[in-house]
Amino acid sequence: MEILEQRILKDGAVKEGGILKVDSFLNHQCDIQLYNEMGKAFFAHFKDRHITKILTIEASGIGIACIAAQYFDCPVVFAKKAKSLNLDGSLYTASVHSYTYDREYTITVSAKFITREDTVLLIDDFLANGQAMLGLIDIVKKAGASLAGVGIAIEKGFQSGGETIRSMGIDLYSLAIIDEMRPGYIKFRK
Amino acid sequence: MEILEQRILKDGAVKEGGILKVDSFLNHQCDIQLYNEMGKAFFAHFKDRHITKILTIEASGIGIACIAAQYFDCPVVFAKKAKSLNLDGSLYTASVHSYTYDREYTITVSAKFITREDTVLLIDDFLANGQAMLGLIDIVKKAGASLAGVGIAIEKGFQSGGETIRSMGIDLYSLAIIDEMRPGYIKFRK
Repeated sequence: MEILEQRILKDGAVKEGGILKVDSFLNHQCDIQLYNEMGKAFFAHFKDRHITKILTIEASGIGIACIAAQYFDCPVVFAKKAKSLNLDGSLYTASVHSYTYDREYTITVSAKFITREDTVLLIDDFLANGQAMLGLIDIVKKAGASLAGVGIAIEKGFQSGGETIRSMGIDLYSLAIIDEMRPGYIKFRK
Repeated sequence: MEILEQRILKDGAVKEGGILKVDSFLNHQCDIQLYNEMGKAFFAHFKDRHITKILTIEASGIGIACIAAQYFDCPVVFAKKAKSLNLDGSLYTASVHSYTYDREYTITVSAKFITREDTVLLIDDFLANGQAMLGLIDIVKKAGASLAGVGIAIEKGFQSGGETIRSMGIDLYSLAIIDEMRPGYIKFRK
């Protein structure tokens, strides 16, 4: 997606340690006009899949998912990372390993919000090693729902998540795929 | 706001311990059409205040803030609860006490996203004792920005947050204020 790639080049920054800072428009400050363009792009790709729910994970995925949901005219469900006092009843959980923080955490979705009648689109801001997304895929499977595909803003194509998910036969649509980056240099996949 | 109150009566549930469950439309599953009606209501109230930024806090505030921001045509910034590796540079922080989890946590906003040129609207899903909102107000002050007001979906009017914030002279606009609730009974402020 040209405008996202241009924005990454203009306002993004590659830091040591494989960190891409896009906090001025994507995951700390949120450019809502850009989010709308991203939502339109997700809709253009997935519009014939009869999506009934968008599932994302707190926190950075929520805004992108909510704006995108306006095009799909469906609700958003966001998986919770922390055990919440407000979560009760039947729950789906998945264990996720965070490489960034080197720890395991559990993501949780109330069973009543993803059912076997649902066709689910998964959305998140970043895909790197794919651990969080594999957790969401696991929850969709546990719910017996249909998985329409995965929409990602920025995929780090040099990490394994994209290949893992595509090799599962899942329609993974990333708006920008970075194949190579270092401070001062970003190369997108054609 | 009539449709929010009706929705709380229809799909909300009061649990023991002062918990109002509205997870089917507000803070786990998100009804984006309702979010849009809430965004319009916030805009109707604050539209003449020349808002340049909406500031919220992860996670449940983000979706509501992003949808509302479409009416104000401004970016959203969300305060982070966890220390993130991606946060660097100058930061504003505030300490927040969570009564729900009985612990202190720190909320953080990059200084570059809230400046003295900004007029900030604070948005969140719930206001109870107001601790998280007081943390956001503290960050707006530290940034030297103007505070236009606070927009809340559901205020628990029987807890102290609303009175605290209004007594500071801040324009607090809550779409639904609950003055009394117990299992099976919810009374809204007129």
